[in-house]
Amino acid sequence: LIMLGFDVLYHNMKHGQISTKELADFVRERATIEEAYSRSMTKLAKSASNYSQLGTFAPVWDVFKTSTEKLANCHLDLVRKLQELIKEVQKYGEEQVKSHKKTKEEVAGTLEAVQTIQSITQALQKSKESYNAKCVEQERLKKEGATQREIEKAAVKSKKATDTYKLYVEKYALAKADFEQKMTETAQKFQDIEETHLIHIKEIIGSLSNAIKEIHLQIGQVHEEFINNMANTTVESLIQKFAESKGTGKERPGKMINSARKHFKISHIVTNIFALKFIFCIFSRDGVSPC
Amino acid sequence: LIMLGFDVLYHNMKHGQISTKELADFVRERATIEEAYSRSMTKLAKSASNYSQLGTFAPVWDVFKTSTEKLANCHLDLVRKLQELIKEVQKYGEEQVKSHKKTKEEVAGTLEAVQTIQSITQALQKSKESYNAKCVEQERLKKEGATQREIEKAAVKSKKATDTYKLYVEKYALAKADFEQKMTETAQKFQDIEETHLIHIKEIIGSLSNAIKEIHLQIGQVHEEFINNMANTTVESLIQKFAESKGTGKERPGKMINSARKHFKISHIVTNIFALKFIFCIFSRDGVSPC
Repeated sequence: LIMLGFDVLYHNMKHGQISTKELADFVRERATIEEAYSRSMTKLAKSASNYSQLGTFAPVWDVFKTSTEKLANCHLDLVRKLQELIKEVQKYGEEQVKSHKKTKEEVAGTLEAVQTIQSITQALQKSKESYNAKCVEQERLKKEGATQREIEKAAVKSKKATDTYKLYVEKYALAKADFEQKMTETAQKFQDIEETHLIHIKEIIGSLSNAIKEIHLQIGQVHEEFINNMANTTVESLIQKFAESKGTGKERPGKMINSARKHFKISHIVTNIFALKFIFCIFSRDGVSPC
Repeated sequence: LIMLGFDVLYHNMKHGQISTKELADFVRERATIEEAYSRSMTKLAKSASNYSQLGTFAPVWDVFKTSTEKLANCHLDLVRKLQELIKEVQKYGEEQVKSHKKTKEEVAGTLEAVQTIQSITQALQKSKESYNAKCVEQERLKKEGATQREIEKAAVKSKKATDTYKLYVEKYALAKADFEQKMTETAQKFQDIEETHLIHIKEIIGSLSNAIKEIHLQIGQVHEEFINNMANTTVESLIQKFAESKGTGKERPGKMINSARKHFKISHIVTNIFALKFIFCIFSRDGVSPC
């Protein structure tokens, strides 16, 4: 167990509250970034759907659009998770303020003990000085061969100063013991507060990591899906789709059919370009006018 | 093999060029989004490093800062990869324009064949009408019992019209055969262009997928690293760091040592708070003043 200084830990409670507020700020800023990214992705998906719907490539834009929309949604999910987390942090911040208030009341006794030992220290200092002065005075009178009566008077004063000094040394020892005991308890209390704070805030950071990790996996799935969809969008299938959409397909160009129709006004036989050969056969067979 | 209409494919070359341009636009917009995201992440990392450096939580902000900076760099790497890809798409776009220009020259013959068959179709139409008219005229004279001379004159005219009609039917058949052959070749050419275009553009999309996938893996590693760093940043280590930074540690509060030093002016024995006991022992042991 590490003992932390009383004042240091007393003021450190404030830093605990600041760290909670700053964590909320950090998560909020991250949420704002993710929201902007999600909005941009939605915009990008719209661009994809606004691109040319003509030509063989057109269906590929649907693959891009779907994938980009899903990416936008992944990041929007993260925003929601982060907003829930911010609420959690704020709720903890309020509990933290309450518990700090309670603690400050509990450690009031220790502050008193500090003040007590400070005042006793001053008294001890003064009593020592007076004790020293009286000793010096007693010695001086002895050396100067003062009267027995004068020396006894000085001895009495010296004895009194010594007793006073001894008294304050005892008082000091008691105050010190009380201070040390109270301070040890308080330091322990402060350290428990720090440990509880760090454990709680590390749990919140754990939730943050999990949220980010979860969304990261979702994004990975969107990428895999895109790669598969692109693999399934074969060149052959794109040509096929295009041919069908243009109503061409395996027949000879429609314009020929239409001109044939217009020309021979016998639509029932002009179902395809080869129908033209009929007429020619008539002439070539009997070599004379059919009329 | 699917045959696509001549006009449809002729104009579809333009759509091929549009799709190339649009793909470049799409990748460019994505790059812009990633760049903005990276910038925001760098800003967020700065916020983390600007948060309070006091209190036990302070070292955790370094973990956030490092991880957020690395995230910013991942997305910046993606921006670079996307910009390389845009260059690649633009380079292909230029090649595409060249090859389309070449193709339009190659299919000029087919356009002529189309014009030829259209003009012959008109001539055939006219010759048929004149042939019908002459037949009807010949029949009418027969019914009305016209003179042999009149009927023979009509027969000659009818024969002439029949020959002209047959001539144009033959001409039409030849033109049609030429047209069909040229058109088949051209349709094949156009289809080859489409297939080559789609294969190339799908390769580019493949590079895009790979770039995104690669960065996604890097981001995953940054997350793992963050989780590990947080796990290594134990509550104990944070308390320890804080205690050391505040110069407190395992001793009793320094203020007590200092006040003791100030008081007894015998620093060599007042190495810790218990040194105070010395003086008191002196008095209690010999019960008299040491002077």
